[in-house]
Amino acid sequence: MRLTVNEERLMKNIFQMAEFGMNERGGIDRTLGSQADYDTRKWLETYWKEHLGLKTRTDPAANLWSERPGTKDLLPLVMGSHHDAVPDGGKYDGAMGVLIATELMETIIEKNISLRHPFWLISFTGEEPNPFNLSTLGSKVISGRLKAEDLKKSKNRETGEALEDALKRLGGDIGQLNKARILPGNIRAFIEVHNELGRNLDSRNLSVSGVSCITGIYREEITVEGEANHAGTTMMQDRKDAMAALCEVVLIIEKAAREYHNPNVVATVGYAKLVPNEANIIPGEAKAIADIRTCNKEIQNELINKITEAVKKVEQNRRVKIKRKVLLDQMPQKLNSVVMQAIREGITHIKEPDIEIPSMAGHDAANMGLITMAGMIFVRSVGGKGHCRQEFSRKEDIAKAANAALYALLKLDKELD
Amino acid sequence: MRLTVNEERLMKNIFQMAEFGMNERGGIDRTLGSQADYDTRKWLETYWKEHLGLKTRTDPAANLWSERPGTKDLLPLVMGSHHDAVPDGGKYDGAMGVLIATELMETIIEKNISLRHPFWLISFTGEEPNPFNLSTLGSKVISGRLKAEDLKKSKNRETGEALEDALKRLGGDIGQLNKARILPGNIRAFIEVHNELGRNLDSRNLSVSGVSCITGIYREEITVEGEANHAGTTMMQDRKDAMAALCEVVLIIEKAAREYHNPNVVATVGYAKLVPNEANIIPGEAKAIADIRTCNKEIQNELINKITEAVKKVEQNRRVKIKRKVLLDQMPQKLNSVVMQAIREGITHIKEPDIEIPSMAGHDAANMGLITMAGMIFVRSVGGKGHCRQEFSRKEDIAKAANAALYALLKLDKELD
Repeated sequence: MRLTVNEERLMKNIFQMAEFGMNERGGIDRTLGSQADYDTRKWLETYWKEHLGLKTRTDPAANLWSERPGTKDLLPLVMGSHHDAVPDGGKYDGAMGVLIATELMETIIEKNISLRHPFWLISFTGEEPNPFNLSTLGSKVISGRLKAEDLKKSKNRETGEALEDALKRLGGDIGQLNKARILPGNIRAFIEVHNELGRNLDSRNLSVSGVSCITGIYREEITVEGEANHAGTTMMQDRKDAMAALCEVVLIIEKAAREYHNPNVVATVGYAKLVPNEANIIPGEAKAIADIRTCNKEIQNELINKITEAVKKVEQNRRVKIKRKVLLDQMPQKLNSVVMQAIREGITHIKEPDIEIPSMAGHDAANMGLITMAGMIFVRSVGGKGHCRQEFSRKEDIAKAANAALYALLKLDKELD
Repeated sequence: MRLTVNEERLMKNIFQMAEFGMNERGGIDRTLGSQADYDTRKWLETYWKEHLGLKTRTDPAANLWSERPGTKDLLPLVMGSHHDAVPDGGKYDGAMGVLIATELMETIIEKNISLRHPFWLISFTGEEPNPFNLSTLGSKVISGRLKAEDLKKSKNRETGEALEDALKRLGGDIGQLNKARILPGNIRAFIEVHNELGRNLDSRNLSVSGVSCITGIYREEITVEGEANHAGTTMMQDRKDAMAALCEVVLIIEKAAREYHNPNVVATVGYAKLVPNEANIIPGEAKAIADIRTCNKEIQNELINKITEAVKKVEQNRRVKIKRKVLLDQMPQKLNSVVMQAIREGITHIKEPDIEIPSMAGHDAANMGLITMAGMIFVRSVGGKGHCRQEFSRKEDIAKAANAALYALLKLDKELD
């Protein structure tokens, strides 16, 4: 008999969790430290206790853990994702991964299946961009990428609340943060199921896939220094218009990324700010942030070189000065081949094509990959929509991912020591 | 004997007035309703009383007037400018025009010159862009372009103070505003001396010039509606990037204006705002304001047509929607030929070339031109600098403008009935 999860129960839980922070438009407002974040944690704790008979442990970064012992003295297999959401976000991003892990645990307990390894669930703290400006917070602390001193400086940019106080409310404790750190060699493997957030799967009509790599993210601030001047009395040839110069740079960046015709190469200028930003004054300064993502470090370097060329050309032609500052240079991260092999067998087992695609968004699995073998399964995002309330994944696709993950978990439990 | 102004006294007054609102960088902070605005008014009132023996009348728009009777029963000749300044502005913009008019009055009184017409001085309220969002306020009220109901809505965007209260502090009275209105046929002529604020004169090494026309200002808000999406998971070909689309529009507008190679044709995008304006989200909306200035209405229409073409092309190529809204369509205004003839004779009289250039900035003279014959004299702005603390006009240029204006005033007094 083939072991499968209980789809109905899983979907019921997804819709149940979506109640926390749901706004009148049907979007989910559940950012780090919000009441909805708190309420979701309480619900999970209760669910894990009542349905799995397991206690919840909250680590000092406020990550929620639930631990079932194994029959052998082995390191744990860990599964999970995050329960927070972007403002006006969807029901699936994060929550689905936590609840699939929960469903796997419930299925295994229900069927009295013994695992050789301890099996742990995790729901990470603050994965999404949030008002504390620290995304994948929980997994960064676990993997040692964020330390207490980094967190102590952080304040909610909207409410002014210190991150320290927000974490305390959620059950964390910055004073003990080093105890949340997990050194390499203490977890056997990690699996995360997540919706794709892009349209790579949907455009190929695929339900699920493995994940080959989590994209590198390179981000730089570009500041054009021109000359603020009167929009009437300054002749066109005398201008050092920072906005027009920035526009040239933006279009060159976009063109360079487009020319790869590769879904795994994207570049975006999502942020821009003019000074003084008045209709009747030529902009004296234009600041923007360029975000480049690819799993291929060589392509990233090519793109950065193209920006450098563009910047030189624009500086010369327009007599402006362009300053650049690297804000982030996160290396692309390949997922672990042993875990991905198990996941791909799981996907084959449920009769889906054996495909791996790169993840163009960051995930907790990237941080977990620093301390253990990590793998990921993607679920189709219908229409490619992500980080919005229109985000949607179909029940049948979610069930497929859960069953593939269950297969992979059991295989890893059997084969790994 | 040729009648000339007292240069030293004039310069002393310019430096005296610059004391009000001078900041530690040497810039002038004297925006509408500020303490410095108030103090300048008090100083002018005292100066006019003590040096000219004339009383100050404050009209309901808080414009300051001082009136010397003529020998005949004729309509008044009026001269003046404004005493407010842009933040961190210069000593000359506005103040110089008020103090040249004052100096002409003082010279005439000192030399016991009888004028056939009454000669009135004016220092206008709130000519500059200000936190009440109403520039050339005083002259707009005089000419009927602003009414009490327009002013009643206005609040200082920084302090929240109602314009009504600010004007009251300055001696105005919104309740009586219609009494500040002057109907056509009540003033014989108006002359304003102002620094150019551009480099048209300086680049030709000219001290002064007449002004042919005050530029039309056309301003439209351009809103690109794209699609906000994840900066990683949205493939380049699937994007509807509002920022990239806006950049194309901005560069097309700039190029179109440049191609005229005409100092009297400029276009600027000085304001832009992205939504959501986050580094990791493709901009879903980009709003900008385009400002087009020319004295030539045909060229203005050509430029608007080029924007229309550009917008269509960008909408098609990028599958975005672009909305446009006209914010301002201020007609170009030719200055009066009779007054300008007198001014040009004045300029010839002081042995400067008989040149007229357009004004690419708005001035109170544009509004005064709606109710009387108006003329303007420009004084060279060294380096073309305006609306900044580096703004500078040389003493000899200022004296030339004053003497040309004096000649023009006496000629108009003689020739007009």
